[in-house]
Amino acid sequence: MTVMFERVALIGLGLIGSSLSHVMRRERLTRHIAGHARSAATLTQAGALGLADSLHSTAAAAVRDADLVILCVPVGALGAVAQEIGPQLKPGAILTDVGSVKGAVIRDVRPHVPEGVHFIPGHPIAGTEQSGPASGFAELFQNRWCILTPLPDSAAAMVKRLEAFWQACGSNVEIMEPEHHDLVLAITSHLPHLIAYNTVATAADLEKVTNSEVIKYSAGGFRDFTRIAASDPVMWRDVFLNNRDAVLEMLGRFSEDLSALQRAIRWGDGETLYRLFDRARSIRKSIIAAGQETPLPNFGRNQKPEG
Amino acid sequence: MTVMFERVALIGLGLIGSSLSHVMRRERLTRHIAGHARSAATLTQAGALGLADSLHSTAAAAVRDADLVILCVPVGALGAVAQEIGPQLKPGAILTDVGSVKGAVIRDVRPHVPEGVHFIPGHPIAGTEQSGPASGFAELFQNRWCILTPLPDSAAAMVKRLEAFWQACGSNVEIMEPEHHDLVLAITSHLPHLIAYNTVATAADLEKVTNSEVIKYSAGGFRDFTRIAASDPVMWRDVFLNNRDAVLEMLGRFSEDLSALQRAIRWGDGETLYRLFDRARSIRKSIIAAGQETPLPNFGRNQKPEG
Repeated sequence: MTVMFERVALIGLGLIGSSLSHVMRRERLTRHIAGHARSAATLTQAGALGLADSLHSTAAAAVRDADLVILCVPVGALGAVAQEIGPQLKPGAILTDVGSVKGAVIRDVRPHVPEGVHFIPGHPIAGTEQSGPASGFAELFQNRWCILTPLPDSAAAMVKRLEAFWQACGSNVEIMEPEHHDLVLAITSHLPHLIAYNTVATAADLEKVTNSEVIKYSAGGFRDFTRIAASDPVMWRDVFLNNRDAVLEMLGRFSEDLSALQRAIRWGDGETLYRLFDRARSIRKSIIAAGQETPLPNFGRNQKPEG
Repeated sequence: MTVMFERVALIGLGLIGSSLSHVMRRERLTRHIAGHARSAATLTQAGALGLADSLHSTAAAAVRDADLVILCVPVGALGAVAQEIGPQLKPGAILTDVGSVKGAVIRDVRPHVPEGVHFIPGHPIAGTEQSGPASGFAELFQNRWCILTPLPDSAAAMVKRLEAFWQACGSNVEIMEPEHHDLVLAITSHLPHLIAYNTVATAADLEKVTNSEVIKYSAGGFRDFTRIAASDPVMWRDVFLNNRDAVLEMLGRFSEDLSALQRAIRWGDGETLYRLFDRARSIRKSIIAAGQETPLPNFGRNQKPEG
């Protein structure tokens, strides 16, 4: 792969930032990675891991002269970061982000983007439940989708450049309206995380079943939910605070459907239960066929050494 | 391993029945496996897979002379099967099952067990989302828990024998009261399945987000839920019909907790969200430490070839 951007600034060096560093190095997409993290501990760790060619204690210093600036911090922090870096952004540079919400990010970032800088919001649909600079790996974006939500005034050539960058990272790219993105992600990502967090909380608070029993017998299904519930709490707090309307809409649907199921259980309506349960298999099959899930039973986890 | 039972009858040759066949053969736990499945197609498939030494088109024929009879059919079918096999059970034999509910199974099976036959209900907390005679494998029970719920009049020596059998299959064994089992499983298994089924149904029924979008962007978290929602619909219908009270109790807790979360989102209460999200990590860590989950990110599924 040839160099696509002379200098790339990574603002935030957690799971996504560090994974971008690894894949950019593997594919030689840039000559210089300038990295910034807020905490001294993360900066030290990033240095030891070789995640950047230069490390900066301020975001403003990291973005100087960068041709591509990627904001990889929780969405609640993006406004302040944009305000800080705005005056330092190089004319002609592309500014993008990886936030799980797009409407609120545009609202918070756009006012701070100077004329001549191309702000193109983005969101790679990729991740694990782990976080921090040591959790990244080059293959994270491979065969995953990355959604770009250009603004009405985004230059088509710049959108193409960013699209090519994500493709070079292994992703498929889709262009979407920000509002639609927030609705799609509310059901494919935000609601599942909320439900997972809630299930874990419910289980932890029971009096009649101990936490140690919940842990011991979690292979009955519960353990699956604990994976996404182990995701970074700050990142997810910010998602829910910033995609409120879409999440509440999906939650309303979910609760309505759950009440119907509850009623079927209470009244012993086996037909309704069967009909509903029987539909779910085809969706999983489609997800596997689309290359977004492993066909192996139990996510292939049985093939791994355990405990 | 030495032979533990001269002749074992497997009534039902789906995921659990076929896995038992594989592990009994690997460990040489019996000299003869007598198998029964209701459908001719399953019997044919079981024959081709070599799951049994003798195959029988009726359960009554399969249990004749068996020292251990293991019922591996959905819990809703157990009463009728018990009625059919009761008169054929060999005096001194152990009769057990693998059902996910214990109270209702005892209610349905016990009346048909003749004197001199030792009925000891059981439940291996192990499975995958796949079903049918081809889905089994010998390692399914390895390092998983198997719960036995002996009756007040169960002979201790017979419970010990069954316990040793499950240990030889790779499991850890726990003895529990049936009512407590049903409560524990309601939270560790039944509620998660219900929630997963419901999430998939909600996603499938949206007008503003297409099914193809749900499938494409499922790596955001949704795909995790589709795994357990792909489980056998008959088995799960029967679980909910037969563990109604415990499931409704857990569902009530879940909905109460979800309402509190919904309120926190609506009112922008980031502190409550953070506090709740931050708790969840420790439970996953404990599950991994207990050997019930892989420590690899994304269940290790990223390490597998995909799509």
